[in-house]
Amino acid sequence: MKNCMDKIEIIGLRGIPDIKENDDIAEIICRKADEQGVGLREGDVIVIASKIVSKAEGRLVRLDEVEPSPFAVKIGEDMHKTPELVELILRESRKIVKMKFRHLIVETKHGFVCANAGIDRSNVAGERNIVALLPENPDESAKRIREGIKRRKNIEVAVIISDTFGRAWRRGHVNFAIGISGMKPIKDYRGTRDIYGYTLRITQMAVADELAAAAELAMGKSDRIPVVIIRGYDYPRGDGSSKELIYPEEKDLFR
Amino acid sequence: MKNCMDKIEIIGLRGIPDIKENDDIAEIICRKADEQGVGLREGDVIVIASKIVSKAEGRLVRLDEVEPSPFAVKIGEDMHKTPELVELILRESRKIVKMKFRHLIVETKHGFVCANAGIDRSNVAGERNIVALLPENPDESAKRIREGIKRRKNIEVAVIISDTFGRAWRRGHVNFAIGISGMKPIKDYRGTRDIYGYTLRITQMAVADELAAAAELAMGKSDRIPVVIIRGYDYPRGDGSSKELIYPEEKDLFR
Repeated sequence: MKNCMDKIEIIGLRGIPDIKENDDIAEIICRKADEQGVGLREGDVIVIASKIVSKAEGRLVRLDEVEPSPFAVKIGEDMHKTPELVELILRESRKIVKMKFRHLIVETKHGFVCANAGIDRSNVAGERNIVALLPENPDESAKRIREGIKRRKNIEVAVIISDTFGRAWRRGHVNFAIGISGMKPIKDYRGTRDIYGYTLRITQMAVADELAAAAELAMGKSDRIPVVIIRGYDYPRGDGSSKELIYPEEKDLFR
Repeated sequence: MKNCMDKIEIIGLRGIPDIKENDDIAEIICRKADEQGVGLREGDVIVIASKIVSKAEGRLVRLDEVEPSPFAVKIGEDMHKTPELVELILRESRKIVKMKFRHLIVETKHGFVCANAGIDRSNVAGERNIVALLPENPDESAKRIREGIKRRKNIEVAVIISDTFGRAWRRGHVNFAIGISGMKPIKDYRGTRDIYGYTLRITQMAVADELAAAAELAMGKSDRIPVVIIRGYDYPRGDGSSKELIYPEEKDLFR
């Protein structure tokens, strides 16, 4: 029975502690994987919820220490949002894509199009008043964790930093990849032929986003499983970036 | 070691034959799962590429038998597309959402926003001239297959019909759920509290889309693995529809 090639495992890591600034996430992942008896293996994909990366990198902000601009105050009033939160959203953004129905969809400094610049109020130190910003450079965060794992275990893995995004046209949120290291985010089928020899036209799968989505199934939302191992997936090796998942504006149909 | 709760398996079914009109997909899935030694189990999610469902339901069309309207001819010329293909796209659509850069993004009769109404030229009977339309009613297709499995195996499973979609703002395609039976497509965290007791605001995860995305990792594109079993995921039980994944236009930020 040689079905190992077709089986992929999604393994949630239990017992990750509440992450504090300067915690070593690579060390914690290696240790928890060992404690759980699954270990880390060459070729694993490690998907990490951005929230714990933000915490380790000190990306928490107290809302009462933020001085909202007049524009933030006005938007806050119009959209029924805390002006201090709006101020932070604007600081993390380079463009407002859509303001409608109390939703503030922006393009972040990284280039991600999402609500509220990805700023999150849940699971942050137990205080409603503290929010978590996205990591400053999620690709770099992923790289540091990947290198930390390599230093400890001498194995090559891929690391994906994920966050929960809404989508145009479709209800509900899904997990996307916002930081990547040790893999290419897109699997390119261009030039390959289908089983009839016809050259495929839909050719580029955003596998990093699909891996992030798969990982979310094991994360749940309030279950304290911010790290998931995906084992047995033959990801595209190479030195990729989450930027490859973002359309440049001049090629984007919807900006 | 009680980690079975946190482990989800993605199992690609090998050896699915080329599907012909009126083939019994439920029977084929049950048989191939048994042959592979994995069987089907209560609580499995079966993700099925829409293409084989279209083939079984006779949703193939010969392009040279299509009479393009003058409008389809004009769009075809402007966008460098076969006018017969444009004609079929228009017939499958109720609205054109965007025409730009040779992309024709429509709202299908089902309500899905996607390129070319989901019409696919690859892997269809070995002929460039034959295309596959999406199933007429993918929820009904999923239900028939789920009931066929239940009849044969006396187990409850969830069935998802999936297809490959592009997204706004993000490069690359991912697999989405276009037909659902035996589960709810959205996992609702509204009212649940995070680990600090703060009520969660981002609360609705589109788990059917995440399951479809996870399945694609085992499908590949030209590998003849159109059926994937996802085992060990505690999906939201109930009688759901893919329509729940579509924003009604009046609530949509981007239509």
